[in-house]
Amino acid sequence: MPITVVGSVAFDTVETPSGRRERCLAGAATYFSLAASFFAPVRVIAVVGEDFTTAEEAVFNAHKIDTRGIERAAGKTFFWQGSYLENLNEAKTLQTDLNVFAGFEPKIPAAYADSDFLFLANIDPVLQRRVREATPQARLVAGDTMNYWIKDHKPALLEVLKGLDILLINDTETRMLAGNSNLVQAARAVMAMGPRMLVVKHGEYGATLFYGSNAGAHHTECFKTPAFPLEKVTDPTGAGDSFAGGFFGYLASQAELTPGAFRRAMFYGSVMGSFAVERFGTERLQSLTREEIDQRFNQFRELTHLD
Amino acid sequence: MPITVVGSVAFDTVETPSGRRERCLAGAATYFSLAASFFAPVRVIAVVGEDFTTAEEAVFNAHKIDTRGIERAAGKTFFWQGSYLENLNEAKTLQTDLNVFAGFEPKIPAAYADSDFLFLANIDPVLQRRVREATPQARLVAGDTMNYWIKDHKPALLEVLKGLDILLINDTETRMLAGNSNLVQAARAVMAMGPRMLVVKHGEYGATLFYGSNAGAHHTECFKTPAFPLEKVTDPTGAGDSFAGGFFGYLASQAELTPGAFRRAMFYGSVMGSFAVERFGTERLQSLTREEIDQRFNQFRELTHLD
Repeated sequence: MPITVVGSVAFDTVETPSGRRERCLAGAATYFSLAASFFAPVRVIAVVGEDFTTAEEAVFNAHKIDTRGIERAAGKTFFWQGSYLENLNEAKTLQTDLNVFAGFEPKIPAAYADSDFLFLANIDPVLQRRVREATPQARLVAGDTMNYWIKDHKPALLEVLKGLDILLINDTETRMLAGNSNLVQAARAVMAMGPRMLVVKHGEYGATLFYGSNAGAHHTECFKTPAFPLEKVTDPTGAGDSFAGGFFGYLASQAELTPGAFRRAMFYGSVMGSFAVERFGTERLQSLTREEIDQRFNQFRELTHLD
Repeated sequence: MPITVVGSVAFDTVETPSGRRERCLAGAATYFSLAASFFAPVRVIAVVGEDFTTAEEAVFNAHKIDTRGIERAAGKTFFWQGSYLENLNEAKTLQTDLNVFAGFEPKIPAAYADSDFLFLANIDPVLQRRVREATPQARLVAGDTMNYWIKDHKPALLEVLKGLDILLINDTETRMLAGNSNLVQAARAVMAMGPRMLVVKHGEYGATLFYGSNAGAHHTECFKTPAFPLEKVTDPTGAGDSFAGGFFGYLASQAELTPGAFRRAMFYGSVMGSFAVERFGTERLQSLTREEIDQRFNQFRELTHLD
């Protein structure tokens, strides 16, 4: 099933203990698309500037990603510069130039109308909601957000949450959104805001899929996937978006969304996140093969399974 | 197989968001013994003062724990007071009175001589080493330590590590001991100090068993267990010691120490840690049944297994 994703396509300059890269092709929609493209057809809605060339276009084309929804605007592409020198788990933002992204008005090509799956990457919830409303045919809708929107744009975000099946955020965002420090209680509060499933990403500790709880159950229902134990993290940028791409892409590849499909999707999400951070920017996702993905999926099973 | 454990038996006064308890029966050897007693016979080496009464003795007796190695000394039992009001994941120590523990000279009863399993709970590494040397018959030796010994008593600790099969510590301690912020590299460095296995406890994120790596392997070999998603953590004290008791106790119950036995032991460790924090002090471990343990073990499998 095809997936439509709306979000940022950007250039990043990053420095990490492994080195520095200038103006890598990046952005949430880019990481998501590349990761998801191993599982399902992907269609992007984004905006780029005049500095987005055929070289960047070719990265999407190589993965058969539909770029008809990437609008070319006068000006420069969204630019972000960050450093992981002090903390490999959290970027320190050095510069953010919204550029053409400041006036982004998502336009959905008619050719995207039959997308059954919709992913709202981390952008202004007002735009997320507009895209959600313009794609009523989508039968599974997932989305991401961040502390900035939770803190300063909560009413708009709450409107988005009502239209989501699945929300993917991290521990801190979950606790902040719910105003509750106990993760299980916070997850339940977030699900009461709309999404029937919540994926909480724990960084190097993996992720948890919460999928509701019955009053009679002895515990809140959830499924946990570990993170791959990496000896070297080169550049953590895009790990969460790549997780989302693997997770949602795998779901889109399934004929039926069984509980088992969601469990395997969590593993594939973790697999894609672990590959993304092995090299700078999208380098590793670009060189990846489906065979490598499935090999690591099996290693993930080994990491957690009793038998 | 019987387990001998050496460590502290103490009284704790704790305050947590759930309330306050005065002088609970506590200490690493107490939590370890109670948790391990569900799986194997346990024998304790410790020292207590005149304030240790038949009421505390009865808690050990109810779990058939051999207390002949608990020495009664003139003075008071080790006392600790801590608060989790600010951070449920880390205690703030308000008071530590070593009391009779200050002059602790572990004495090993002759009746303990056939213990195949030895656990060195978190005490002065000089004492850990002495007990290790006095129990040459032990065929599986595990131990714990803490930041204080790593920072200020490293040479003595390094001597202990040479005699350990398995070390159980947390993330921060692993990184501190290895002087390396990457957990996989740090784990390998710690194993090079002696223990052939390392259990790294991640608190609310579960634990990882590292068991070496081959030059030819694509990844460092490890096994991960999640933590149980608890809606309420009443008192985190003793979670790590209870994990160790479940882990080591389960191993001691096995006829053969297969790779599968270590995996199941990790799950049982996590199970016992999750029960320990449900109530204050050792209250939950005292009321626990083997049936409840196995029920939660199966829930743990549900949390991580694909099928």
